[in-house]
Amino acid sequence: MPQMTRDELSILAKIERSLAGISAKNGDLALGIGDDAALFRPKTGYETILTCDWFLEGAHFLRNKQPPDSVGWKCLARAVSDIAAMGGTPRYFLLSLALPDSITGIWLTRFLGGLRRASQKFGCALAAGNTPRQSKILINVTVVGEVRKGRATLRRGAQPGDLIYVSGALGEAELGLHTLRRTKGIARSSNAALRKDLYPEPRIALGRWLVQNRIVTAMMDLSDGLSSDLRRLCAASGVGATIDAPDLPLAKSSISEGRRENLFELALHGGDDYELLFTTSRTNAARIPRRFQGVPLTPIGE
Amino acid sequence: MPQMTRDELSILAKIERSLAGISAKNGDLALGIGDDAALFRPKTGYETILTCDWFLEGAHFLRNKQPPDSVGWKCLARAVSDIAAMGGTPRYFLLSLALPDSITGIWLTRFLGGLRRASQKFGCALAAGNTPRQSKILINVTVVGEVRKGRATLRRGAQPGDLIYVSGALGEAELGLHTLRRTKGIARSSNAALRKDLYPEPRIALGRWLVQNRIVTAMMDLSDGLSSDLRRLCAASGVGATIDAPDLPLAKSSISEGRRENLFELALHGGDDYELLFTTSRTNAARIPRRFQGVPLTPIGE
Repeated sequence: MPQMTRDELSILAKIERSLAGISAKNGDLALGIGDDAALFRPKTGYETILTCDWFLEGAHFLRNKQPPDSVGWKCLARAVSDIAAMGGTPRYFLLSLALPDSITGIWLTRFLGGLRRASQKFGCALAAGNTPRQSKILINVTVVGEVRKGRATLRRGAQPGDLIYVSGALGEAELGLHTLRRTKGIARSSNAALRKDLYPEPRIALGRWLVQNRIVTAMMDLSDGLSSDLRRLCAASGVGATIDAPDLPLAKSSISEGRRENLFELALHGGDDYELLFTTSRTNAARIPRRFQGVPLTPIGE
Repeated sequence: MPQMTRDELSILAKIERSLAGISAKNGDLALGIGDDAALFRPKTGYETILTCDWFLEGAHFLRNKQPPDSVGWKCLARAVSDIAAMGGTPRYFLLSLALPDSITGIWLTRFLGGLRRASQKFGCALAAGNTPRQSKILINVTVVGEVRKGRATLRRGAQPGDLIYVSGALGEAELGLHTLRRTKGIARSSNAALRKDLYPEPRIALGRWLVQNRIVTAMMDLSDGLSSDLRRLCAASGVGATIDAPDLPLAKSSISEGRRENLFELALHGGDDYELLFTTSRTNAARIPRRFQGVPLTPIGE
């Protein structure tokens, strides 16, 4: 942790206090915050999954519209979603947080509140952090996960004839983002779409279940939208895809946003849903329920 | 890897090409760039070390003075130094690199040249990366290392009566930074101090040797300067320290910078040296050579 001022240390102490209870549960974290690096004991028979993700003011969130606790929740949820996409279990995260001087009080407290809730919900404990001063809020999160040796599901692996599935509704977060953009001041989450944008839920349990039951041939999370992400999965697997347009699970919307073509466009191209996109053989498709823990699972093509 | 544009993908492909040969050597990296996350098999009997570090334009480097290959080298060297400080071996790194549009050509090529040299030198392979657009150059590096179970040396562990050692010369990088600040345009590395600031060498081999031979009781790397870092080591160990001022290994300097008090101040408070600070029992002190692979090891107090 180089270049630490007393002020940075006091912020780091605040972060530690806020997230402390959660770290303690993880017996295999040999050493967390407060030394040069985090140290942990990987479980025998497991592989380690690593992912890192930016979450930057302006590019990924709007400070003047997005509630601080949503920023805290979402920065971790995005990175955890990459672990879920491999069928893994998130364990630890490293938080790199650069803050303007003006923002170390109530904003930070609320940010840490959202981060704490996400950390608890995802079972993912803070392992290390650093907090230099910057003029904008910059966040980078590294998440460490684990998966049984040889079980991780990759993007490559889809076979010709496999069915394509998605979890949840598509385009919902983008619909929520449209609402957020129209909001004056900090948004109060009111409808499902806005909640989906502000507080996405990575599909950890679903990813693990699919992988443990050896149902899927390829999997990834939907972060940029179906049209971009499906192309990536196909490229990695060396296959093509046909989508049955009427089968796409669209976002539910009321009043003015309700034009169906619009929702269809959102489902194809809307980002930030953090749903799972996966493929399965026709034989295994019979084992996939219509809903998993309340989340719809929809075949959308092959 | 959310929010990736075609442009970002082409930059990521450039990064992959530049660092590809190095990844291939590491047989235990099950999956590198190109999927949702990196996947690797921890060695049996080893613990995993994780550290992450910002390297930000303005705060940590000056774009108009620092050669791009130094930025590439140093962003990795800083994080690797935290692994060295625990006696570990660096294995993989994750690169989060945000770039302005104007800077994706020759600057990026040279940056990657420095990063590639560091990656080869430190035996640390690229495991994943992402590259959004930003108005400033933002870098965050996560490094994964490993150390034999139970062998990592922490900051806590120093005992009353232990001797305090440092590697190398202190204050040299700060002296180099003074030269860099006076430079007009991009610096050409010319003297030892400037080289130390631009291309620091984390003491990986030394850290491993000290830990393998069970010589040290506590260890950390010097990133903020002896006065701050020694205080941290003492706080973590619950001990105090006495320094023999005349014993401090000062930077060598010529002409106008040569005032001795000045060099002494630099040795106490200068940052960015990435030397090791460690403690040892009086018995084990006899086993510490005066130099390790050309790097002086100096007892400075107790």
